Amino acid sequence: MSTIVQKFGGTSVATAERVKAAARRIAATKNAGHDVVAVVSARGNTTDELYELAYEISPCPSERELDVLLASGEQISIALMAMALHALGLPAISFTAAQVGIVTDTSHTKAKILRIDASRMKRELEQGNIVIVAGFQGVTEDMDITTLGRGASDTTALAIAAALGAEMCEINTDVRGVFTADPRIVANARLLDRISYDEMLELASLGAGVLHSRAVELAKKFNVPLRVRSSFEEAPGTLVCEEVEEMEHIVVRGAAMDTTEAKLTLRGVPDKPGVAAQILGTIARKNISVDMIVQNIGREGKTDLSFTVKKSDLDTALKELNRIKEEVGAEAAESDPRIAKISVVGVGMRSHAGVAEKMFAALARENINIQMISTSEIKISCVVGEENAPRALEALHETFELDKQESG
Amino acid sequence: MSTIVQKFGGTSVATAERVKAAARRIAATKNAGHDVVAVVSARGNTTDELYELAYEISPCPSERELDVLLASGEQISIALMAMALHALGLPAISFTAAQVGIVTDTSHTKAKILRIDASRMKRELEQGNIVIVAGFQGVTEDMDITTLGRGASDTTALAIAAALGAEMCEINTDVRGVFTADPRIVANARLLDRISYDEMLELASLGAGVLHSRAVELAKKFNVPLRVRSSFEEAPGTLVCEEVEEMEHIVVRGAAMDTTEAKLTLRGVPDKPGVAAQILGTIARKNISVDMIVQNIGREGKTDLSFTVKKSDLDTALKELNRIKEEVGAEAAESDPRIAKISVVGVGMRSHAGVAEKMFAALARENINIQMISTSEIKISCVVGEENAPRALEALHETFELDKQESG
Repeated sequence: MSTIVQKFGGTSVATAERVKAAARRIAATKNAGHDVVAVVSARGNTTDELYELAYEISPCPSERELDVLLASGEQISIALMAMALHALGLPAISFTAAQVGIVTDTSHTKAKILRIDASRMKRELEQGNIVIVAGFQGVTEDMDITTLGRGASDTTALAIAAALGAEMCEINTDVRGVFTADPRIVANARLLDRISYDEMLELASLGAGVLHSRAVELAKKFNVPLRVRSSFEEAPGTLVCEEVEEMEHIVVRGAAMDTTEAKLTLRGVPDKPGVAAQILGTIARKNISVDMIVQNIGREGKTDLSFTVKKSDLDTALKELNRIKEEVGAEAAESDPRIAKISVVGVGMRSHAGVAEKMFAALARENINIQMISTSEIKISCVVGEENAPRALEALHETFELDKQESG
Repeated sequence: MSTIVQKFGGTSVATAERVKAAARRIAATKNAGHDVVAVVSARGNTTDELYELAYEISPCPSERELDVLLASGEQISIALMAMALHALGLPAISFTAAQVGIVTDTSHTKAKILRIDASRMKRELEQGNIVIVAGFQGVTEDMDITTLGRGASDTTALAIAAALGAEMCEINTDVRGVFTADPRIVANARLLDRISYDEMLELASLGAGVLHSRAVELAKKFNVPLRVRSSFEEAPGTLVCEEVEEMEHIVVRGAAMDTTEAKLTLRGVPDKPGVAAQILGTIARKNISVDMIVQNIGREGKTDLSFTVKKSDLDTALKELNRIKEEVGAEAAESDPRIAKISVVGVGMRSHAGVAEKMFAALARENINIQMISTSEIKISCVVGEENAPRALEALHETFELDKQESG
């Protein structure tokens, strides 16, 4: 029998009525003849409320204990979901991550899944049970409770789907699927029927916010088809799957805007080998992730080095630049938090030239200055002033005719 | 190093301030040179709130899933308590029952502890950590989460104290200790310095409500001294310990009143062997516990059989009596929910005669009719009309001079 993993996010289980609605969707899948594993998140604001409890007790709670605390949220959800399925007359059994053997490393609050012991789940599925598993959490070899980071219930769902060789992993959420651009910004953004893993990965990491990057990576690695759909309506949503040839007819699948980053520039850096590595190494040692990096050809033995980091890391990064600027012989350190990254993504770019030119021309027509440019095989990103970002996104959506139905 | 187990009930961890106060008491014990294991209950009304969530989903939630749900309450408490100890600069680590190996049978919602694997706790104590353990819960051999029944965090504390060979188990609660009678009813009820395990067992099962009977049984079985004290003041409370000779000078240690039971009577039962067994067997098969049983000498081959059950079981029990009354040849089945059981308890009764007489005389002086009488080696109980119960309790407290300081 084929197995389907269905994940329900926090808003999809926020009230008793929603838990019941989710249970009906699970029941329909079971009654259609599939084995079902449901992965559920903590309800609504539970995680925030638990954080508040912690901070009432301590300004800097231990990460191990935060994980013990937070994991209780999903434990509540799994029990309620099992009860809701029982009320529909279906056999169901709930498991915490510890019970079902989701083994992680020991990095509390951002643990990585090492392996899943699927034997208990398989046994329960064979007995006809619907299996309900707590998302977001894991357990170390030493039986310590861990959590996988915000939004990581998607990752739990995909890891389970991979471990069980599931036919499909369905992410039931509070949006209708993946759009050509954020519909809150671009009015005529269109819901995509299909998108490739690679395109979704670029969009996920570009701040589209629909899916967790690690979940998409797992889906790609284990080739598990992934469906993103609304918990609140019956439409099929968006299928995230392996790239097929017809997808290449579409040059740009979608556009995204990310306002979570800030820009740093070190001016007048000596243009000689090893300097960039020294600067970025200093940043990396502070555990700060650098996204875009741009260095132009130098003039008179000097160059400018710009890069972007998360806004929350800006102060620390700037302090580091000021600390080392004399050491590396640079002239000045500057920062700008008021930027946004605008990107277009599509596997068709691999075989179609002229996308960058078309993108830059569109921004020029809007009189929007491009501060940094970065490209990958299937993506082009530009940094622009934050105030121009929504207009830039709309212009790109229009230029690449993303509102039009795909021909493929 | 000596180990002390400190248990904190729900009201003792209901708010952030109370968690911090409890942490200070644990810290003081640790700083006095003891190894400390703290057992904590779910906070304040958490358990009731979780029940409400369950009943919003299903009118009769599965007991296995109720246990998964309820166990999240203590998980929240242990994490917060560990954080509070960290904030005081002390090393502490929290464990759920599953993590610390509190293995129970599979009777969900009322599981019995089979064994405790103390190895992880011992390892952590040896490393200087304060160990925080979730009360009320356990785990089956198959890693299913169980709970031990309401109030059973006391039982967890005693079982851990026994497993670790602790020097003392301290129950920190919302009352100051064990009183000669319920101070809400008897104004001059006196706090006891000491009470024997056997006396405490009788009082616990008589509805004194301070301690869980199973906890006292464990304390007696493993000879762990038990201290009941207030979480909110520094007084030492009451020591529950092995009987020592001087205790026998006190004939009556305390008096108790229990209004949770109801009386059933089957009138005109044939006075022949096997009939009582047949009647009570019918009740037992409905999983109803019978407390007092009274059968008088018959007249003309007939007798009346009376017994008490929990008020919540009264309807079921009466239905059973009506069902079998013709079968056993009885004349009528009657019930009375408006009764109360009044008891006096003391190990000194073993060696002192005349307690019953003194008790009955006191009730007679108050013009209170005795409906049923039951005695054990260290206890005498009378069933009286519910409306007379507080007056009866006060009269007995006065008659046995329980307000006076013990001479022993």
